Amino acid sequence: MDEVLRQLTYGLHVIGALDGKRPTGCIVNTVIQVTSSPQQVVLSINHKNFTSDCIKKLGLFSVSILSEGAIGDLIRRFGFSSGKDVNKFDGITFANTASGLPVLETGVCGWLECRVKSTTDLGSHALLVAEITGAKKLNSVNPMTYTYYHRVIKGGAPPNAPTFVEKPVISNKSGKHHICPLCGYEYDGSHGDFESLPENWSCPICGAAKATFEIE
Amino acid sequence: MDEVLRQLTYGLHVIGALDGKRPTGCIVNTVIQVTSSPQQVVLSINHKNFTSDCIKKLGLFSVSILSEGAIGDLIRRFGFSSGKDVNKFDGITFANTASGLPVLETGVCGWLECRVKSTTDLGSHALLVAEITGAKKLNSVNPMTYTYYHRVIKGGAPPNAPTFVEKPVISNKSGKHHICPLCGYEYDGSHGDFESLPENWSCPICGAAKATFEIE
Repeated sequence: MDEVLRQLTYGLHVIGALDGKRPTGCIVNTVIQVTSSPQQVVLSINHKNFTSDCIKKLGLFSVSILSEGAIGDLIRRFGFSSGKDVNKFDGITFANTASGLPVLETGVCGWLECRVKSTTDLGSHALLVAEITGAKKLNSVNPMTYTYYHRVIKGGAPPNAPTFVEKPVISNKSGKHHICPLCGYEYDGSHGDFESLPENWSCPICGAAKATFEIE
Repeated sequence: MDEVLRQLTYGLHVIGALDGKRPTGCIVNTVIQVTSSPQQVVLSINHKNFTSDCIKKLGLFSVSILSEGAIGDLIRRFGFSSGKDVNKFDGITFANTASGLPVLETGVCGWLECRVKSTTDLGSHALLVAEITGAKKLNSVNPMTYTYYHRVIKGGAPPNAPTFVEKPVISNKSGKHHICPLCGYEYDGSHGDFESLPENWSCPICGAAKATFEIE
């Protein structure tokens, strides 16, 4: 069943929220438009995500639509750490929507500002329906699809994602597979043998240490 | 705002349902996975769609995931006519899921069978959360994204779609734009001047007559 589910199509988005006055956020693949009048989207977000708590309190979130120009660091920063522990917007350029929500303006092709209208509890996730209250198109770079992320950037889904699959294995040319236990990234051999990589080498997607990689 | 909304990413899917024993269906771009345990999807579907009535009665639907191999006829057949008036599955090959729902096996890369768990009324649309009860991968052809549909097939959104935009205008090389009033397709000049096309020429996407095209 997992193989069929991977055939569904998604974009990748940085959800922005406010923890009091502190900007925070996370990466999701689960934003689509569901009505045109009014213009509304849905967002499915894991209850375990700190961003989810912030959205529940304020009832507002932003959607920065990642483009193919988004760098790995952006995905690692927003997708594989918690806003509880780190200030994810520290050290990067961001703008604010009219309601003060953080939005990215590099590595993205546009953004939306959304106000939550209703919430359905799906167990692990909350399904939010939200009205779009603001939007800005930044450029015409291709949006990053989940397929592009998997095929070109060779990234995986973090455990809180609805599309998470345990121990994903992506085939490569060599016999051995060196797989990141956290995000599913498989080392592609582009810097030589895995064994000869420096010990401080880390997963280019999520930053997990070389020593934690699984060999399959 | 419409321009930003077009940067969100979607796949295209034929939703299958049963009107009693009669198979019917429609095209949507609004299916994504929202939880992994259990494996659930959401579907946003316009109340005006006949398929929507059938899903409400039986609580079951299928999702045939269109691939880039899907032909225009499939999109015209399922996207731009009503199952109230025509038997959309007549004359094409289809299979049945364990629950008897119709699914396509050509022009698609896989399909899902889904059981509705909850429904939220969004005004024009119903938002269904559904558990996946069956699935089949058919091939590894690329899924058809909405972007591919717009850019390569040059199709538009029917009025019942959440992404419908009134009078879409797509720029082309000539000064005049000949636009299908029904689906938004703009004639691309590939068969010569629009005026010199035969009078029985019709929109390659939705079948609307040449005479109905708007000139902008």
